[in-house]
Order: sequence, then C-alpha cells, then structure tokens
Amino acid sequence: MILLDGKKTSQDIKNEIKAKVDVMKAKGEKVPHLAAILVGNDGASLTYVGSKVKACQQVGFESTLIKMPSTTSELELLSKITELNENNDIDGYIVQLPLPKQINTRRVLMQVNPDKDVDGFHPTNFGKMALDMSSFIPATPFGILELIERYGVETDGKHTVIIGRSHIVGRPMSILMGRKGFPGNSTVTLTHSHTKNITQITSQADIIISALGVPNYLKAEMVKDDAVVIDVGITRVPDETRPRGYRITGDVDFENVSKKCSFITPVPGGVGPMTIAMLLKNTLLAREQHKNKTY
Amino acid sequence: MILLDGKKTSQDIKNEIKAKVDVMKAKGEKVPHLAAILVGNDGASLTYVGSKVKACQQVGFESTLIKMPSTTSELELLSKITELNENNDIDGYIVQLPLPKQINTRRVLMQVNPDKDVDGFHPTNFGKMALDMSSFIPATPFGILELIERYGVETDGKHTVIIGRSHIVGRPMSILMGRKGFPGNSTVTLTHSHTKNITQITSQADIIISALGVPNYLKAEMVKDDAVVIDVGITRVPDETRPRGYRITGDVDFENVSKKCSFITPVPGGVGPMTIAMLLKNTLLAREQHKNKTY
Repeated sequence: MILLDGKKTSQDIKNEIKAKVDVMKAKGEKVPHLAAILVGNDGASLTYVGSKVKACQQVGFESTLIKMPSTTSELELLSKITELNENNDIDGYIVQLPLPKQINTRRVLMQVNPDKDVDGFHPTNFGKMALDMSSFIPATPFGILELIERYGVETDGKHTVIIGRSHIVGRPMSILMGRKGFPGNSTVTLTHSHTKNITQITSQADIIISALGVPNYLKAEMVKDDAVVIDVGITRVPDETRPRGYRITGDVDFENVSKKCSFITPVPGGVGPMTIAMLLKNTLLAREQHKNKTY
Repeated sequence: MILLDGKKTSQDIKNEIKAKVDVMKAKGEKVPHLAAILVGNDGASLTYVGSKVKACQQVGFESTLIKMPSTTSELELLSKITELNENNDIDGYIVQLPLPKQINTRRVLMQVNPDKDVDGFHPTNFGKMALDMSSFIPATPFGILELIERYGVETDGKHTVIIGRSHIVGRPMSILMGRKGFPGNSTVTLTHSHTKNITQITSQADIIISALGVPNYLKAEMVKDDAVVIDVGITRVPDETRPRGYRITGDVDFENVSKKCSFITPVPGGVGPMTIAMLLKNTLLAREQHKNKTY
C-alpha cells in the first residue's frame, strides 16, 4: 500500500512554482498576482483566505486581500469584480465563498472574467474542461489529477467510481477521469444520493474517489483488493482529546480500507493540502496566458 | 416492448411550437428567427441545412440561409458571425459543420454569442448545463431527454450506461442523466474505446444509450431483460435493394435486442427525427429569452 502524500506533494509543487517565480524575478519580469475578495467575517473563510495569501508569499507571488463588510450589496461586489476584471496588474482572483445572503452567488461568479477565474467555477471554464479545451480546472479536482500523475497511478481502461455529484468535486472529476489522455481514459461511474446498490458498484471499482462528506462511509467490504482510494471528505468530528475539540475525518474507514489498497490518500494530509498548491498553479498559468496576450 | 417513436414525437413537438407561433402572430409579436450559415457545397450539409430551413417554415419561424463559398476565409466567417451576434432580428443561429479546412472550427464556435447558440456547442452553454443552470442543450441529447420525458421512462436511481464519449452526444448525455430532477438522477457510467469488459457493464444497465456509430454493435447478450435501449447510431450501410443504394443502420441489433426491452428507439425513426424539432425548441427558447432582455 502506497500513501498518496498530499502534504509532501503540495510542498514539491510550491517549491517548483517558487523556482519559476525566482527566474521571473531574476529576469525582471512581473510576477503572478492573485487577489482574493472576502465579504464578511466568517471565521473559516478568514482562515482559508489567510492560508491562500500566505501561500502566495511563500512562492513569491504578489497578493491582494480585499475585505468587504458583511453588509456589502450585490451591486457593490459586482462593481469590485468589474474593477478586478479591468485591472491588468491582477492575473487571477477568487471570491471566497460563502457570500452573505443578500448576494446572489451565481450572478457574482458569472461576472468573473473567465481568463482570471483561477477557481475554475465559471461555466465557460467548466464547459471548456468538458470539451477537452485548455481551461482553469477547479483546485480540488486538479489536485487529485496531480496526485494521480505524480504517483503514476494507472487510469487508462480502469473503472473509476465517484461518490458524490457536487459541482466542485464529483461532477468535474467524473468528466476529467473520462477525458482522453492521462490522467483519464477511465470508464467512469458517477454515483450519488439516488444510487441503488452502491456497494455492488464500488466493489467493482479499480479507483474510488469519495466526495460525500460522511465520516467513515466507505468500508472495507465496499472495496476490492488493490483498489486505489482517494478520499475527498473532510468532516469535523467532535473529539475532546484534540486541542481544537475536533478532528478532521474523511469518508473512508482508513484503518480497514487501507489494508486492501494499492494507493490511498490519508485524511488529513491527502487531497486537502493540494488545493492551495493548485490555486497557485492556476494563478501561474493565468500569468503566463496574460503575458502572451496582445492588448 | 414500447417503441420510442421519434417520428411521431417530433411531429407533436413541431405542432406545439406552431401553435405557439400562431399565438405570437395573432398578437402581432415578432416570431422566432433562425439563421444558418453554410460554408461550401458539401452534399450532406446542404441536405441538413435544407431540412432545418424547411422545418422553420413548417412551424412559422422566420429563417435565413447564409451561403458562403468554400473558399471563405476564417476572418470572413468570423465577421459574418459578429454581424449575426449584433443583429437583433436574429434570435438564434447555427454554423453548419464540417467547415472547410482553412477555418479553425473551435475558434468559430467560440465566437458565437452563447445567447444565440441554439446548437448548444459553446463552452459557456456546455458549462451551464454541467452546473445545472438553464442553457441551450445540444439537439441530440435534448431529443433523447424529450423522448424519455414524454414516454415516462423512469430514470431516478436507474443505472444508465452510455457508449461513446463524443462532445455532441455521449459526454453531454452522461452529464444530463446524472443531474438532479427528471429526466436525471441516474447512476451514470460513461464507456468508450478504452473501456474493458463492456458486456459486463452494459448487462448491468437499466438504460443503455449507444452513440458509437458501429452498425449492430449492441447484441442481445449485452442487454438485460426489460432494459431501455436508446440508439443514437446512424451509419449508412451499402444496400443495393434501396433506391439510394444504402440503408441507415443503428448501433443496436434491433431484431434480437428489442425482444428483451421495455422501451427501445427504432433506427430510422427514433432519435434522428428529434434533432430538428429540438433545434426549433431551442430557437423558440432563444426568442423568449431575447424578448425578456432589456437592451
């Protein structure tokens, strides 16, 4: 059994990005610039955005954190987005979710210039991904692809079963694993809350990607020998023995499932740490595309 | 066994559209206007475009056929597209494929205003579809959904297996059948040329949608009892007994498979005739959205 180590891999990626940025700097070129809009004071959102800004600093990117009050109107946010769309110094930006109730999230995400949409949430990027065109791939799916690629997990002709059809993980993964090339060329089954006989389906899978958010859902009897198991679940389970009063738990009963696997991601330390690294990678890509554009 | 009769259903849809157009006319409103661009003299393309124009006439739509010579440059075509994007009288338009070799098809399709893209080929429409937003759905997948809906084929919790991952049928169908609602909520498996043990997979399917283009590929032993079989294949097979020297053959060994099915589409007369009806439906939708827009 080989651990797909997201902690180590994400650090490798950050080091690679930093090396590229160092070259840019040495050449006197503009470095990638990521902006993040944070509306309101949600504690988890503050932490996430803070980590993203910190990661930018680690690799040498410029970053701008735009904090707006929780009373911000949709119109105010939309005009801030227009400003970022028009600001040539910003290569990519993210709008940290969730947004306050008075703001229509979909309308906001539609306003983001797809060329700066480093979260890959705009329909144009999603459609390009589904049509095998170059695009920004959302960070979590992109991170899974990167783990598969770096560890040389075979996907061609394999049966990949995905659990959960969310817009940010399950659905994009189902598309990506069935595309031509590597990682891809899998036979893909997408399962969800309406699926019957889930055990019958998962136990045929060569690769299982679980993005359900139910702790310890995937049991050993649902997995065949030598399967690859990728656990995207991150649920906070109360645990008084931990300093924060909770522990992060994945969808997979790791102790029992891991014994049957050829590859498996731990939680924490698997897919989770990859997301910020992939956001940086998308921002670097945005910078490169931006540079090559003629205005 | 119930035949999913696309010939009859498409006529029903055309009648419904015509009734709506008659109401528009009676109210003195503008009727939907579809334009089609045809570049070159490909015989099959001429036939297809001709059928689309004729269908417009049948339901009372305005239509404009724009013929451009086979020597048309990409720039000339792009500027014609810009013209159609800006022409408020045109509600929707299509660019008949294939295009001559000197023209980059992807660049052309990217130029189409997504709000007028009644073929549903633009990445923005594709992405909206995958993200459960309202969009133009490509005609063939849309026609399959319509047959499923009108015949009340149950899809919720069913296992749908799709054969073929093309951009215009297989991939969009795999997304649509797994979306929430009806038709949808299926567990979806997308298979393709790299799939192993295809018979093992299809024989577990409640619903099979075959879009492979290999005559008589799907045999009775690949299908379980009471399955629903939708045949998107249309291959011309030489046949000297026919006036045209060929017959249209589907992917399914109809004679033997149909005996096991609860529902099945014939070829011809199944999915094929639905496509033009759905193009008309998309054009009607474009007109309605166009009307509700404030300029």
